[in-house]
Amino acid sequence: MKLGVFDSGIGGLTVVKSLLEHELFEEIVYFGDTARVPYGIKDKNTIIRYAIEAVEFFKNFELDLIIVACNTVSAYALDEMRETSTCPVIGVVESGVLAAVNKLHDKNADILIIGTKATVNSKAYEKALNSLSYYNIQAKATGLFVPLVEEEIYSGEILQATFKHYFHDTKVPHAIILGCTHFPLISGELQNYFGEDTILIHSGDAIVEHLEKEFIFSKKYKEPNLKFFASENPEALRNIAKKWLGL
Amino acid sequence: MKLGVFDSGIGGLTVVKSLLEHELFEEIVYFGDTARVPYGIKDKNTIIRYAIEAVEFFKNFELDLIIVACNTVSAYALDEMRETSTCPVIGVVESGVLAAVNKLHDKNADILIIGTKATVNSKAYEKALNSLSYYNIQAKATGLFVPLVEEEIYSGEILQATFKHYFHDTKVPHAIILGCTHFPLISGELQNYFGEDTILIHSGDAIVEHLEKEFIFSKKYKEPNLKFFASENPEALRNIAKKWLGL
Repeated sequence: MKLGVFDSGIGGLTVVKSLLEHELFEEIVYFGDTARVPYGIKDKNTIIRYAIEAVEFFKNFELDLIIVACNTVSAYALDEMRETSTCPVIGVVESGVLAAVNKLHDKNADILIIGTKATVNSKAYEKALNSLSYYNIQAKATGLFVPLVEEEIYSGEILQATFKHYFHDTKVPHAIILGCTHFPLISGELQNYFGEDTILIHSGDAIVEHLEKEFIFSKKYKEPNLKFFASENPEALRNIAKKWLGL
Repeated sequence: MKLGVFDSGIGGLTVVKSLLEHELFEEIVYFGDTARVPYGIKDKNTIIRYAIEAVEFFKNFELDLIIVACNTVSAYALDEMRETSTCPVIGVVESGVLAAVNKLHDKNADILIIGTKATVNSKAYEKALNSLSYYNIQAKATGLFVPLVEEEIYSGEILQATFKHYFHDTKVPHAIILGCTHFPLISGELQNYFGEDTILIHSGDAIVEHLEKEFIFSKKYKEPNLKFFASENPEALRNIAKKWLGL
C-alpha cells in the first residue's frame, strides 16, 4: 500500500515514526505545509482551503490512503478532503478517540484533551467522545507547547512553568489525548507531571491501532520508499526527519 | 499624507500606536497578513513573495508612504518592495538603527538585538550598525516571546523562565533593539530584568523619530481615517486594535 501523510509542518513526523516502527507501508509520501505552518491559529475556511490543496498535491502519487496527521486539519477539513480525494482519508481525531475508548472502558472516566486553539475550539474530540457516551471531558488549548517543542525545549523550567500555567486548576484525569502531533515530544514530562496512573493517547500509536483494525496488512516493509515534501525549506524538514526518525 | 502600514499579523499595531500618538497622518491603512503569520520562521523567498503581494494590495489606496512594521519583512524584502511600489517604503530596521545610534553616541557601546529567528539570521541590524562603525553587537533569536505575547502572557513565571533561558549568559548591554513588533508589550519586564541603565529601542518610537527627520508634517491629525485589513479573521484584528490602540 502507498500512503500519503499530510501535516501542517513537521509535527506529523511523530506519526510517521509510529508507522515506520510497524512496517505497514511500501511507500510513504509525506507533505508538510511548512510555508504556512502553524494551522492551529488559523480560521476554518483557511484550513479547509489548504487541506484541499494538499489532496490535489497527493493526486500526483497514486496513493491508496491518506492519513491526516495534523489534529487541526482532522478537526476541520476531513469531510472536504474526502470529497476531493480519490482514495480514503483517515484523520488522527477519530483514531485518538477510538484508542482512548479502547484503553478506558469506563464511560465515567475523566478525559482531558489538549491541543491548539483551533483544535480545541472545533470540539471535534468532544463530539466524537459524546457520541460514544463519554461525557466527563475537559479540553484545554495549550498552544505554547508547539513553539516550545519547535525550539527543542522538551524539559526544564519554562516547560514546568507552562504546565503550571495551563494545568494548575486541572484535576488529574484518567486519560489525556495528545491532540497535537508536537506533544509526544513532551509526553515524558507530561506523564511525570500528572503521574503514572494517567493514560496518554498518542496520535501515531492511535493511527496504527486504527489501521490494523480497518485494513489487512499481509506484508511487512522493513525499508519502505520514503518521500518528503515541504512547501518551503525542505532542508529543515530533512534534518528533523533524520533526527526524529533516526534515518 | 496617506500611509500604509504592513505587518505579518497584529504586531504592527504597536507601531500604529506610536504613529497615532504623534498625529502625523491623515489616513492610515493597516494590512496584517494574519492568514500566513508568523513570517519569522519562513524562508527568504517566501517572505519576499508575500511582501510583494502586500505592495500590490496597497496600490488600491493611492498612498504617499508605506511603513513596514514587521522586522522580518524589513530585514529581507525592503529592496524588492521598493522596486514594486510607486511610493516610498520605510522599514523598522533602518529606523531602529538610527534611533539606537542617536541615543548611544559611544561607538563602543554594547548593543543587543533580539528578534525572530529569520530577523536575526538576516543580520540586517548588524550590517547597518557595522556600516556606522558600531561593532560590539550581539544578536539573539528570542522567538518564544511572540507566542507568549499572543497568549497575552506579559509577565510572570513563564516569561521570567524564558528570560533566563535566553539571557542567562548575556552581559547587560547598553542598549537593546526590540527587533520584533511584539516585544514592546513585554518591554517593562525586559527593562526590569536588565535594569534601568539599559536603553530599549522600540520600533514604533524609532519610526516616528525617523519620519520627523525625513518629512515635514505641517498639520496634526487628531482623528485620522483608519482602515484595517486582515488576510483572515478580521474580527480578531479589530478586537486587538481596540484593546491596544484604545479605539
